[in-house]
Amino acid sequence: MSLLVVGSIAFDSIETPAGKVDRTLGGAATYVALSASLFTDVRMVGVVGDDFTAKELRVFAGRKINTDGIERAPGKSFFWAGRYNINMNERTTLTTELNVFANFRPQLPAHYADSEFLFLANIDPTLQLSVLNQMRRRPKLVALDTMNFWIEGALGELRKTLRHVDILVINDDEVRQLSGEHNLTRAARRIFQMGPKTLVIKRGEHGALMVHPQFMFSVPAFPLDDVQDPTGAGDTFAGGFMGYLAREGRVNLPALRRAMVYGSVMGSFAVERFGLDRLRSVKISEVKARARHFAKLTQFEL
Amino acid sequence: MSLLVVGSIAFDSIETPAGKVDRTLGGAATYVALSASLFTDVRMVGVVGDDFTAKELRVFAGRKINTDGIERAPGKSFFWAGRYNINMNERTTLTTELNVFANFRPQLPAHYADSEFLFLANIDPTLQLSVLNQMRRRPKLVALDTMNFWIEGALGELRKTLRHVDILVINDDEVRQLSGEHNLTRAARRIFQMGPKTLVIKRGEHGALMVHPQFMFSVPAFPLDDVQDPTGAGDTFAGGFMGYLAREGRVNLPALRRAMVYGSVMGSFAVERFGLDRLRSVKISEVKARARHFAKLTQFEL
Repeated sequence: MSLLVVGSIAFDSIETPAGKVDRTLGGAATYVALSASLFTDVRMVGVVGDDFTAKELRVFAGRKINTDGIERAPGKSFFWAGRYNINMNERTTLTTELNVFANFRPQLPAHYADSEFLFLANIDPTLQLSVLNQMRRRPKLVALDTMNFWIEGALGELRKTLRHVDILVINDDEVRQLSGEHNLTRAARRIFQMGPKTLVIKRGEHGALMVHPQFMFSVPAFPLDDVQDPTGAGDTFAGGFMGYLAREGRVNLPALRRAMVYGSVMGSFAVERFGLDRLRSVKISEVKARARHFAKLTQFEL
Repeated sequence: MSLLVVGSIAFDSIETPAGKVDRTLGGAATYVALSASLFTDVRMVGVVGDDFTAKELRVFAGRKINTDGIERAPGKSFFWAGRYNINMNERTTLTTELNVFANFRPQLPAHYADSEFLFLANIDPTLQLSVLNQMRRRPKLVALDTMNFWIEGALGELRKTLRHVDILVINDDEVRQLSGEHNLTRAARRIFQMGPKTLVIKRGEHGALMVHPQFMFSVPAFPLDDVQDPTGAGDTFAGGFMGYLAREGRVNLPALRRAMVYGSVMGSFAVERFGLDRLRSVKISEVKARARHFAKLTQFEL
């Protein structure tokens, strides 16, 4: 089934202890789409400026990614520059230029409106809701990411949007901020009352935790010898997670567990190289092999 | 088979956001012994002062714990007071009084010297080595815990002791400090060159990771609704880990995985109440039930 993703498309300048890269294609929608496209058909909605050329468009070519929903606006694309600390578990934003993203009003092409799976990447919750309202019928599964900026500055709008969301995919600090509760299982119960029936907590180098009224599922981050750039890891996780579910077409409990694993698999590839480099080259056979490595990493017999 | 544990026996005054407790029995050897005794026969070596009375000794009574190796010295027992932050993931030491522990020179009762499993809890590495040298023959398995204090202040002695150790059980900061390497898999390879062939990395609320030349195994911390006191969680983990291996009697790869799970199970009980309270009441049937919950938390089918 098709996965529709709405979010930022950006240029990133990234410095990590492993090196640096200037103005490389990034943005949440980009990472989600590239990651999910290994599993299913993806439709992208976002906005880019004049600096987004045929070269950038080629990143999506030859994949199951429809880019009809990428709007072109006069001006420059969203630009972010950041620097990671020595341990790559914290980062400092050096520059954020919203540019054309500041006036982004997502418009769904008509042929996107029947997408069965919807991922609302981190943007203004009012815009996230507007996308949902443009769907012809409610998707089978709606997942949403957000961030501290919206939790602090647009909590009413966010909570209004959350009422329509099945799965909230956010990091542990955001879970705590949104729920006002440090303990993650108690935090999850508060979030269930806001709408989402499932919470996926991204914990960076510590993996991810799913909390569902009927079960919890934990998956570690894959221990890698060489992490070059954590940028986009969470979005890549979300892309693998949603892409896998869309490919399965059903959202039952075993599929949710596997989706967590494939999300983590994709995240583990993303961080191996700068920007999209590894995601652009990774093959589904490698994805499957690493999923088996995740099994070896976590499975035991009592 | 028998597990010999050498380490501190202390009184702890603990403040957490969930409450406080004064001068309750604690210390690494105490937590390890209580935890391991659910699985196997335990022999304790430590030192206590005049303040350690029949009341404290009763904590070990009725369990498979031999206390002949607890030396009584004139003066007071080791005393530690600490306060945890609101999230219970950091703590401030308010008081450390070594008291009789300052002159601790572990002496093994003759009937301890044939113990097949040895856990050297966090004490001066020279003393850890002296215990190993008192064994009649080399134990089947030797595991060691240490801390930043010794890595900084007695690195030569620690490295000398590590040459004789099979499994190093330390937290992630200590792994990084000892190896001079942030990346955990690379850090593990450096530690393998120091002697231990297996590294168990305790990550607190993020669980534990085993790195072995042939495999890695990750186990999460159990998501609990109510954590009251993290004191002793790492030692309780080590006790479950070593106790389970001693009970199995063999140290093969499936047993190492299960030992990681049982260590985590025991750690998850320890933090539910203050000090030793939960460990004193937990039953093996509850341990087994929680191990099955760990399986539900982590297992998936590709």
